[in-house]
Amino acid sequence: MKYFAKIKYLGTGFCGFQVQPCKRTVQAELAKAVSLATASQCKITGCSRTDAGVHANEFCVTLECDSATVPPEKLPVAVARFLPNDLSLYYAAACEDGFHPRYDVKSKEYLYRIRNERIYDPFDFGRAWFFPRLLDERAIEEMRRAASALVGTHDFSAFMSAGSDTTDTVRTVFYVDVSKQGSEIDIKICANGFLYNMVRIIVGTLVEVGTGNKKASDVTEILLSKDRKRAGATAPPEGLYLNRVNY
Amino acid sequence: MKYFAKIKYLGTGFCGFQVQPCKRTVQAELAKAVSLATASQCKITGCSRTDAGVHANEFCVTLECDSATVPPEKLPVAVARFLPNDLSLYYAAACEDGFHPRYDVKSKEYLYRIRNERIYDPFDFGRAWFFPRLLDERAIEEMRRAASALVGTHDFSAFMSAGSDTTDTVRTVFYVDVSKQGSEIDIKICANGFLYNMVRIIVGTLVEVGTGNKKASDVTEILLSKDRKRAGATAPPEGLYLNRVNY
Repeated sequence: MKYFAKIKYLGTGFCGFQVQPCKRTVQAELAKAVSLATASQCKITGCSRTDAGVHANEFCVTLECDSATVPPEKLPVAVARFLPNDLSLYYAAACEDGFHPRYDVKSKEYLYRIRNERIYDPFDFGRAWFFPRLLDERAIEEMRRAASALVGTHDFSAFMSAGSDTTDTVRTVFYVDVSKQGSEIDIKICANGFLYNMVRIIVGTLVEVGTGNKKASDVTEILLSKDRKRAGATAPPEGLYLNRVNY
Repeated sequence: MKYFAKIKYLGTGFCGFQVQPCKRTVQAELAKAVSLATASQCKITGCSRTDAGVHANEFCVTLECDSATVPPEKLPVAVARFLPNDLSLYYAAACEDGFHPRYDVKSKEYLYRIRNERIYDPFDFGRAWFFPRLLDERAIEEMRRAASALVGTHDFSAFMSAGSDTTDTVRTVFYVDVSKQGSEIDIKICANGFLYNMVRIIVGTLVEVGTGNKKASDVTEILLSKDRKRAGATAPPEGLYLNRVNY
């Protein structure tokens, strides 16, 4: 039986999605729970890797289980009792054989949450980037101008951390939305693919535009330079959510 | 210097507000931080006790500090660096001498959050009561009818846990609002005072009305019986928030 499933998780307690020896990962916890619930060996393939501390509101996987007889619509409840509290599987369906949860992705949307206030909100610890220097409406407007320069098909080398073996660094960004409501700044980025740490470097760069450390018009130059050192700092993982996966 | 201050905290990691030997409490953490920030000995008085695991969106305190010279408007930022991540002090003002944060309370509002869905949301672990049996609009209507019977001045003995030395068990409840949005049921209860576990027993009783285990019309009888055994089970602490304090 091959299932397609959607999961969500609070990333704080995980060393990312992908199995690593001796570390607590989403993939390992999920494999354990699905194997117990279906009484069979299950192979899990994810739509993406996420880094330690990064969250997912929607993350897609396939579960290939030897001998599972649990009908897909019953899988979420069957698995729930074996999952830890920071991970849930909330949707499952039968999956066609040819489908691949990573290669078949058309686009993904990430959400980055910034809490922009001087005093920390304890309910958002580990769930947003606490940024105490206040960004006013003019700053947000500059960040939007900078964001619009990223939309389109570009070589995003300047927005990639070292440590990845990717050689094709061209990606198409469909939108970068910057919104502010009260003390919360949300940045949503949708693209056909992402380089290593790309969202976090984009967010770090946009925030530097907001503080006046960089200009909105610098973004095009940064892109063209293909030089990681020209872009802003990498924003911390705790504000980042994989938000939607489109096939 | 005597300050009036407002704090908020995620209750999960605390054994309630009030200092207890060898336990992590809000009062102890706050006293430590304020003493360090003001370089003086500080006595803290709270508006209420809260139980272990209970949260506060707004909790009021007075801070009486021997020799503090920090102006009230600077206190939140001064204290922030000494507070743990699950506790913040977000407002401070100078306090008149005669004011008492508990005795001068006119009313308090508690919020109780229920997540009513079959699959757990990992982002709400420890922050809401996960209740998987689905309550439909008719059930919510019955809960509202039951809630309305609690409004007014009554002897709430039937809604008090053992273990308190209170002898006056009459309280005035101003409103009990039950609202449902998506999978979240919020119950807001405002009263001039609360008996031990009163909100949690009211919530437990209302949910039993929702499931059909009790009838809305039973509530008046339960009140009149003054018998704790007639009311519903005590709802768990993790859904409860002190939400507003009115002076």
